[in-house]
Amino acid sequence: MVDPVLPSSGVLSPLGLDDVRLAPGFWGDRVALNNDVTIAHCREWQEREGWIGNFRGERPRRGREFSDSEMYKLLEAMAWAGHPGLPELAASVARAQEGDGYLNTRWSGSRYTDLEWGHELYCYGHLLQAGVARLRSYGEDELTRVTIKAADHVCRRFMDGTQTCGHPEIEMALVELYRATGTERYLEMARRFVERRGLPALGEIRFGRAYFQDDVPVREARVFRGHAVRALYLACGVVDVAVETGDEELLKAVESQWERTVARRTHLTGGMGSRHQDESFGDDYELPPDRAYNETCASIASIMLAHRLLLATGDVRYADLTERTLYNMLATGVALDGRSFFYANPLHVRVPAEPLDGVNHAAEGGLRSPWFDVSCCPNNIARTLASLPAYLAGAEPDGVRIHHYTPSEIRGADLAVRVETGYPWDGSVLVRVLADGAGRIGLRVPAWASDSTLTRGEEVRPVRPGYVYAEGPWRAGDELRLELPMRPRWTFPDRRIDALRGSAAVERGPLVYCAESVGDEPPLGDLTARAEPPAEHVVDGVVELEVPAVIGGADGDGWPYGPASVPGGGTDVRLRLVPYHRWGNRGPATMRVWLPV
Amino acid sequence: MVDPVLPSSGVLSPLGLDDVRLAPGFWGDRVALNNDVTIAHCREWQEREGWIGNFRGERPRRGREFSDSEMYKLLEAMAWAGHPGLPELAASVARAQEGDGYLNTRWSGSRYTDLEWGHELYCYGHLLQAGVARLRSYGEDELTRVTIKAADHVCRRFMDGTQTCGHPEIEMALVELYRATGTERYLEMARRFVERRGLPALGEIRFGRAYFQDDVPVREARVFRGHAVRALYLACGVVDVAVETGDEELLKAVESQWERTVARRTHLTGGMGSRHQDESFGDDYELPPDRAYNETCASIASIMLAHRLLLATGDVRYADLTERTLYNMLATGVALDGRSFFYANPLHVRVPAEPLDGVNHAAEGGLRSPWFDVSCCPNNIARTLASLPAYLAGAEPDGVRIHHYTPSEIRGADLAVRVETGYPWDGSVLVRVLADGAGRIGLRVPAWASDSTLTRGEEVRPVRPGYVYAEGPWRAGDELRLELPMRPRWTFPDRRIDALRGSAAVERGPLVYCAESVGDEPPLGDLTARAEPPAEHVVDGVVELEVPAVIGGADGDGWPYGPASVPGGGTDVRLRLVPYHRWGNRGPATMRVWLPV
Repeated sequence: MVDPVLPSSGVLSPLGLDDVRLAPGFWGDRVALNNDVTIAHCREWQEREGWIGNFRGERPRRGREFSDSEMYKLLEAMAWAGHPGLPELAASVARAQEGDGYLNTRWSGSRYTDLEWGHELYCYGHLLQAGVARLRSYGEDELTRVTIKAADHVCRRFMDGTQTCGHPEIEMALVELYRATGTERYLEMARRFVERRGLPALGEIRFGRAYFQDDVPVREARVFRGHAVRALYLACGVVDVAVETGDEELLKAVESQWERTVARRTHLTGGMGSRHQDESFGDDYELPPDRAYNETCASIASIMLAHRLLLATGDVRYADLTERTLYNMLATGVALDGRSFFYANPLHVRVPAEPLDGVNHAAEGGLRSPWFDVSCCPNNIARTLASLPAYLAGAEPDGVRIHHYTPSEIRGADLAVRVETGYPWDGSVLVRVLADGAGRIGLRVPAWASDSTLTRGEEVRPVRPGYVYAEGPWRAGDELRLELPMRPRWTFPDRRIDALRGSAAVERGPLVYCAESVGDEPPLGDLTARAEPPAEHVVDGVVELEVPAVIGGADGDGWPYGPASVPGGGTDVRLRLVPYHRWGNRGPATMRVWLPV
Repeated sequence: MVDPVLPSSGVLSPLGLDDVRLAPGFWGDRVALNNDVTIAHCREWQEREGWIGNFRGERPRRGREFSDSEMYKLLEAMAWAGHPGLPELAASVARAQEGDGYLNTRWSGSRYTDLEWGHELYCYGHLLQAGVARLRSYGEDELTRVTIKAADHVCRRFMDGTQTCGHPEIEMALVELYRATGTERYLEMARRFVERRGLPALGEIRFGRAYFQDDVPVREARVFRGHAVRALYLACGVVDVAVETGDEELLKAVESQWERTVARRTHLTGGMGSRHQDESFGDDYELPPDRAYNETCASIASIMLAHRLLLATGDVRYADLTERTLYNMLATGVALDGRSFFYANPLHVRVPAEPLDGVNHAAEGGLRSPWFDVSCCPNNIARTLASLPAYLAGAEPDGVRIHHYTPSEIRGADLAVRVETGYPWDGSVLVRVLADGAGRIGLRVPAWASDSTLTRGEEVRPVRPGYVYAEGPWRAGDELRLELPMRPRWTFPDRRIDALRGSAAVERGPLVYCAESVGDEPPLGDLTARAEPPAEHVVDGVVELEVPAVIGGADGDGWPYGPASVPGGGTDVRLRLVPYHRWGNRGPATMRVWLPV
């Protein structure tokens, strides 16, 4: 089956990319843009920056120590998208591989001398994922042979001993290669990498061992911590190992870490990782809107993890977080033209960013950039969108479950259905059965969607958040209609989130909204909104909202602390709110999701 | 005169260290501890870490590229304190100097190849300040000869051209050396370094040119920005150049940058520099209590700058900020035993830090550490406390002004007085004239001290914030008594400071207070205080406060955003507040200055 994650057991089984065909719509459009434009953009920039040339032996070598991984993510994207340029790039990769399988354009000659920061095993991880993508979408070729040779080298070099990599990633890749090939040593190698971590397996670094999750063994950890992408990639690998080895305790450990992380270390958008300095989670309830780092790659890692947990357990909460993260992080990470990207995704921007045509040397989140020194996010977006259909629905022994609604055709088990919807703008979802069949159809009612209804023929029934099922048998032409309530709603933070005290945000369906100020539009610095029901306007197919607000006359510029809160004052305005994923598409802007109320 | 800053003109003239003699009391105790314990501690650690050995030619060289500057700060502290160990260390420094005056243990052999990050001119700056301290407190010796030779080398190498240093510091040092020696080229060199900045004079770096204030010329900047210590050291040099060249426009530029920075980029404690990542100010109103970086060195730089602006203008606001910064940052930076230090000074700590006996590789602010990889703060505290008397009072043509009240004897102009007070615990300040004399005595009434009175003989008069004057002539035994109101007060933030919305802090006199929780004490994570008048208790000579509060029963651990604020609930407690400068002296703790109200 053509799919990035194919566990051998679990409550749900994946559907392949061929089983979920996207039609034009919110995600269909984005996947098409990705496959047509973004993949080519990424290739072009990797050529320009010399990261592809590194594989051809061009010197001096260019890019950071982990730049090989960008080539592999691009190859993975190309594999899923069936891009014809893959073999040429794969040939360059093959050329750089050494006789014993070692492959790294930075560390050849000083192999494995800096496991903490070298990213060699991390790079193999991405190579293996690209190889698996190729194997499943095409079959054996030069890229898959390079992959196997590299994986065998890793097993020979690391099976014994206590070492691992400063950046997790290879764990899940080895399990997937095991799933794709049946070679058990890959699973065993992954298992050992997981179990070694935290004993500890790595040396001291400035940020402390929690940075790369080497502070405590994975079974003993209570929460995701340290570098967010590392923590979440590791957790993906742990779930994969747990599923393939039948290790319930290990799976439960990750579930409980996920639960605590979602409750205490996750932004409203689904973004994870608050701190800029070390790209880490930070402490419980440290969720500042302005300095929210929320790296795009961490949100992709979170989607990957929630997908694995959903497959293993069938628990709707994983699909709920995925939806939030898809619409408010993944869709935000790339511009509407497919050619520029956010690295960090703050929820409040006070100063408009400077426009930039070239490489962004920083990872701030004020304006999307075409490329970065560390350009993990564009390539990660490319491979994720290229395999997006895999995330939208799943199979059960007795039917299918649809997790996410976008115009599409879905074939699984004994069923074929078409989904027709204007979601997320419109809450009406029509599921039309395309051929006679059996088995139940499960539809996800999102956590926010109380007061939903499901209509089948004459029968209209109220349904609650969670999966709701309609039983077969089915005749071609049968219809189910799910109606999700799309009233905008005000959302308030837990009072332990200090940075959000006194503020509220507006959501509508799965979308988080924000105020954005471009050019001469009213400033957002001294703003008080009234938490009244927002008005709706449809502008070019996008639902925008409007709330009453007062934009304050600025206080004086003296010492900003005094004996009493200065009362509001200011001018009444109608504050326009746009979906967060669309902000920053009109040029340099200030923005805020959380509004003082 | 023995003093770190001796401008040739200004509204106020400095008093020398010999003119302000501290008696036991808040600052007298701290200066004595510094001179007896902290200076020796710093020397011991610099020996242990090899930074002194670098000057003796020991190899491999140890420490960061700027570690030479720590030796120079230590030498400066020793010079002010009259420490007998100075000549031995100075001899090591002399030994490392090259024939043409060049002196740097890191870059010898590759001189000036990395002005952006090399810190060579920065290191000279600290050497020059040490040399000036020695010249003024002792006279010519080996250290002062090394200093002159180095300064002459710098002038030869950099007088022409467009270059400067990535870390400002040498500007103020050159001006002071000019003041100490009369050699005009040092002033001219400083002037050129100031004027070159922002043209730009340095290359691109990852953090952008604002990081080292090379984004715009200093005359055009509106606010302090970028790396806080760099910005504030530069501003000190700019004031010095402006004063010595009579450049009113340049002085006004710094005054206006200072004003805007204090209004928008300064924490309640006087701390400056919010961001950890690049140790920078961040944007206007970006003042998070938990991630406040507030480097101790930045507060020292802020004190140095305000001192220069006070001397130049006589404006009380500079003394007000200095007081705030002295009591809430400088006094916080060092433990009560003089042997451990804060690098960062957050206003909210959620997780107790791990105790650490050795070198702290991070710069977090949870617990004071004996030493750091980058150990600028301990040595900076040592030199600042060793010269503290210089900051406490100043001379006018017709008398003295006392800026800060601590038990001391002050001699200036035609006056000699003794200050007797229990300040900051007690608001009563007795100024006793020690000998017949003339001239007016100016006393600062702090900005927070409305309802103060000044008593002279039978006359009691209400006095307002600002300087209040009592005219001479004086007879020995005459007394002035200033009564400052020490009622604790609730302080609220400007509503543009998003991170503090819905919170208030308690201050008493010049002190900011905080709640601290050690061990089994009630947790501070879910707390609501009532903004009622705090009760006072004196514990071991320290005034502690108490306010009513509710410590909430924690919410559940689900998704932390929902349709309504969860109402309070919880347990009524009497919340104990301690002076912020004393927090973290009882072991690992959580802490918060800003209390939800």
